[in-house]
Amino acid sequence: MTIPAESGTAAPAAGGSLFEKEYLPASTEGARYRWFRRIFHHDAPDERNFDLVLIAVILASVAVVLLDSVPAIKQRWHLWLYAAEWVFTLAFTVEYAVRLWVVKRPWRYARSFYGVIDLLAILPTFLSLLFPASTSFAVIRALRLLRVFRVLKLVQYSSEAGVLLDALQRSRRKIFVFIATLVTIVVIFGALMYVVEGPEHGFTSIPTGMYWAIVTVGTVGFGDIAPGTPFGRFVTSVLIVIGYSIIAVPTGIYTAELARSLQPRRRQVRCTECGLPDHEADAWHCRKCGRTLPHD
Amino acid sequence: MTIPAESGTAAPAAGGSLFEKEYLPASTEGARYRWFRRIFHHDAPDERNFDLVLIAVILASVAVVLLDSVPAIKQRWHLWLYAAEWVFTLAFTVEYAVRLWVVKRPWRYARSFYGVIDLLAILPTFLSLLFPASTSFAVIRALRLLRVFRVLKLVQYSSEAGVLLDALQRSRRKIFVFIATLVTIVVIFGALMYVVEGPEHGFTSIPTGMYWAIVTVGTVGFGDIAPGTPFGRFVTSVLIVIGYSIIAVPTGIYTAELARSLQPRRRQVRCTECGLPDHEADAWHCRKCGRTLPHD
Amino acid sequence: MTIPAESGTAAPAAGGSLFEKEYLPASTEGARYRWFRRIFHHDAPDERNFDLVLIAVILASVAVVLLDSVPAIKQRWHLWLYAAEWVFTLAFTVEYAVRLWVVKRPWRYARSFYGVIDLLAILPTFLSLLFPASTSFAVIRALRLLRVFRVLKLVQYSSEAGVLLDALQRSRRKIFVFIATLVTIVVIFGALMYVVEGPEHGFTSIPTGMYWAIVTVGTVGFGDIAPGTPFGRFVTSVLIVIGYSIIAVPTGIYTAELARSLQPRRRQVRCTECGLPDHEADAWHCRKCGRTLPHD
Amino acid sequence: MTIPAESGTAAPAAGGSLFEKEYLPASTEGARYRWFRRIFHHDAPDERNFDLVLIAVILASVAVVLLDSVPAIKQRWHLWLYAAEWVFTLAFTVEYAVRLWVVKRPWRYARSFYGVIDLLAILPTFLSLLFPASTSFAVIRALRLLRVFRVLKLVQYSSEAGVLLDALQRSRRKIFVFIATLVTIVVIFGALMYVVEGPEHGFTSIPTGMYWAIVTVGTVGFGDIAPGTPFGRFVTSVLIVIGYSIIAVPTGIYTAELARSLQPRRRQVRCTECGLPDHEADAWHCRKCGRTLPHD
Repeated sequence: MTIPAESGTAAPAAGGSLFEKEYLPASTEGARYRWFRRIFHHDAPDERNFDLVLIAVILASVAVVLLDSVPAIKQRWHLWLYAAEWVFTLAFTVEYAVRLWVVKRPWRYARSFYGVIDLLAILPTFLSLLFPASTSFAVIRALRLLRVFRVLKLVQYSSEAGVLLDALQRSRRKIFVFIATLVTIVVIFGALMYVVEGPEHGFTSIPTGMYWAIVTVGTVGFGDIAPGTPFGRFVTSVLIVIGYSIIAVPTGIYTAELARSLQPRRRQVRCTECGLPDHEADAWHCRKCGRTLPHD
Repeated sequence: MTIPAESGTAAPAAGGSLFEKEYLPASTEGARYRWFRRIFHHDAPDERNFDLVLIAVILASVAVVLLDSVPAIKQRWHLWLYAAEWVFTLAFTVEYAVRLWVVKRPWRYARSFYGVIDLLAILPTFLSLLFPASTSFAVIRALRLLRVFRVLKLVQYSSEAGVLLDALQRSRRKIFVFIATLVTIVVIFGALMYVVEGPEHGFTSIPTGMYWAIVTVGTVGFGDIAPGTPFGRFVTSVLIVIGYSIIAVPTGIYTAELARSLQPRRRQVRCTECGLPDHEADAWHCRKCGRTLPHD
Repeated sequence: MTIPAESGTAAPAAGGSLFEKEYLPASTEGARYRWFRRIFHHDAPDERNFDLVLIAVILASVAVVLLDSVPAIKQRWHLWLYAAEWVFTLAFTVEYAVRLWVVKRPWRYARSFYGVIDLLAILPTFLSLLFPASTSFAVIRALRLLRVFRVLKLVQYSSEAGVLLDALQRSRRKIFVFIATLVTIVVIFGALMYVVEGPEHGFTSIPTGMYWAIVTVGTVGFGDIAPGTPFGRFVTSVLIVIGYSIIAVPTGIYTAELARSLQPRRRQVRCTECGLPDHEADAWHCRKCGRTLPHD
Repeated sequence: MTIPAESGTAAPAAGGSLFEKEYLPASTEGARYRWFRRIFHHDAPDERNFDLVLIAVILASVAVVLLDSVPAIKQRWHLWLYAAEWVFTLAFTVEYAVRLWVVKRPWRYARSFYGVIDLLAILPTFLSLLFPASTSFAVIRALRLLRVFRVLKLVQYSSEAGVLLDALQRSRRKIFVFIATLVTIVVIFGALMYVVEGPEHGFTSIPTGMYWAIVTVGTVGFGDIAPGTPFGRFVTSVLIVIGYSIIAVPTGIYTAELARSLQPRRRQVRCTECGLPDHEADAWHCRKCGRTLPHD
């Protein structure tokens, strides 16, 4: 269930294509094609309306799952919630079937990230018929919440998401280096606090110390574990100052990349001589061969 | 009581116009017009003085409400606070009446966001005469604090607020996409922790888990609910690292937009001699060849 | 004891001048002038060495005050700390006297921000001779820590501090608008939580609610007061998302201003025709009159 | 064991060179040279493969140390963990010996930052043979975790780390000024809270107050110490607003520096025909007149 890597899409800035492969319709005419467009395209008014209805239904079904987990509400409204859950499940099952029907290679869709999400979002309700509800069943029921990813998928088609994802993509490797550095700091400080404070102040093992170090360096600070000795507090202070200083790093990376995305566009005109496609906005001559560039 | 959408204002950068419609005076001469200018304009010295006095009075009346809620102070100074409250309420009532008197379409003002605020800020004190003070009455009394919005309204007229709001406006949609992503993460992690930790560690329902996830990913970390199992702590660590990485996103969005706002505007006019297309906003001559630039 | 406003200094970017007025020497020759240079200038090697020694002595004296407040340490080492305190106090007294001796208008120095700091840093030790040590005396003794400001003063002379302060100066008014907005949010949410949660969950008054709102929106989250009702937790979640979104604002303001400070310099050459002094880095002709600019 | 300062390296942007000196091979042919390249170079495929295997082994050995500190796991799997620890220690010992063998000046490597790390990472296991395991021995065993630095070293060779470190290097002095300001604030507020709240609310000494001030201004907020008096809460609110405002400073510094690093390098060469001075790094012809640009 990995996020499929992009291969050969023309417009990576479109954002949506980052997570969803481009599918071909099984048929190019009739109801089957109309439904393909409604489900897989997001530009024409009726395609957008379908998306909005879908988002509303998904959010309503997520709300039902959330409310069903609150003991006081479940006790009182359980029958209504149960009925609503079946209505939503059947609606999503129909939608899932339609998706497989309209797409050219259904099996490829079924194995994709969102295909698996779609299936996992409807399976638990059907499974509840087969198995009696046990406490361990809560895990499977919670899977229905994966529907929320489908909202995310639709949001990703906006051009805003495109710009944001684009900048994230480009800062991906720098953020990986940053996280590697962070983990090193967390291991060192987690072990240090385990040695300094010991089990009597809650640092029962090095992994526990690492959990505390992450909570601290991420400026969350639950306070479930806190240093008790003067030296432990000094180490904590050092860790906080380090955290405070390096919190700038991911922000810096992302801001710099985003600022680049928002910068004034260059002239995308191909030199007739040497074919260089990308020039400064005020260029008249190709910087490589000196030939006059064609007007836009 | 929604914030009215802007329609057809010439200068959106003025900031104040974002929240307050532009009102026409009921009369263009005499005391009525003078008061209109004093209340609705914010440029001439005496208009600015009126604003400063108003801010001082609003802050004083807010302070009275705040102090009145502290049991120890209320017991001792209640009579004074009660008297001050009536002085402020009468002053605001007079001001509200003057506003309705000087404006051309009083009903339109009364229904606007700030018109409703003005009314809600004086009503509770009058209502306290009609009804005996009960505990549920605290809710209505607290409405008086809505006065504080009026300070915000006046602050918004400064050009600084204009630049800030302008950048917020432009990053509005990107921040919406960001919050949608955040909510998805919160739902997934809230449900995960509900399943992993369960009611015995305070995760009594999925909404409670979501509250915990927001408190954690927002780096607040009250510690009223905290993970107790090793796997729960691992999930928490992952959530914190995610939160730490994406805290960069709104900052990046806003900084990039604000940097654009603060950049000196340039004249995009092409020099007839050498063709240089990009000049400073106040340029008359091309900086390269000295030729007079054409008018826009 | 207000920070003196700047008036007519040629180089505001120098940073240090932001906080310290420029003093004239009482004499321009002999030992008196040499000490004036040592104390008030920060460029030549021996002036810098004096600064470094001063920083070391200040930090040592601050350490003595800190250690003296720890009961366990005070009990054991009190005599040594007491002796060290007197050595430092006498040294600072001599330095204070020398400052007044070498400067042209000693009274003006004595009334300045750092002049008052210098006095307050030595007075408590002398006062301890006059009055027997009482518990309320702790307040006065703590004043000695104001010495730490003197380290800050010396750091401010570096050009790095100049750039940072310069950007802070320019973003001053925007940050004020931001804080006004923040305070409005805090008042509204503080009152809301007071009404929703009430004294039984620790929200004993609206000011207490505001304290909680600041702790929450500032992502500190001590957890000494935390919401207990489902609706209170929902309000908290909204407040955290607001806090998470607007944390971007001061960062955005400051980053944008700082980026402007670090931007490539313009050509500071005066047009021989019209006298315009500030041009783009690549300008050959004056953008106002078209005259060829002189070479640097 | 200080991090060696860089002296005379040609490419500071390479990142790795910031922490590791450049070593010369003891021999330039045969197995000895092949191993030198495998260990000290990071470009060719087999050199990269060696790095990846090394990272995997280091991470596995770190995991063993972490698991060994969890009482429940240690009790059950101690024998396996003990065996694994010896396998890793022997492997690292062989690697350490090979490093000393292939390098020209082994002693210089042994004294370097990473040379010391390498030694400290293998010593504890051997020492455990000499001394019986005591509780104080936990400190020495924790030293084995210093191996994690070796992962960091390898990560630093990527060009991404180069850019990040480069920007950190350049913002180093500004961040130092910032931390000096932060420490001043912490001292002042720590002492203030010690005076205001006193030992009964947990502020037992000024250093404890400073620990609390760092936890607060860094927005961590454990809640192990929290203000109890109204005035203490007011001071806390002021401190949080200050912290919220200045959190922007390191982010601003770093973002501005990083944005400079990411800007495409430009050629500052003046066109002999039209005089345009600023071109893209890869330009051969002037983009305005098409003339061949002179070589630098």
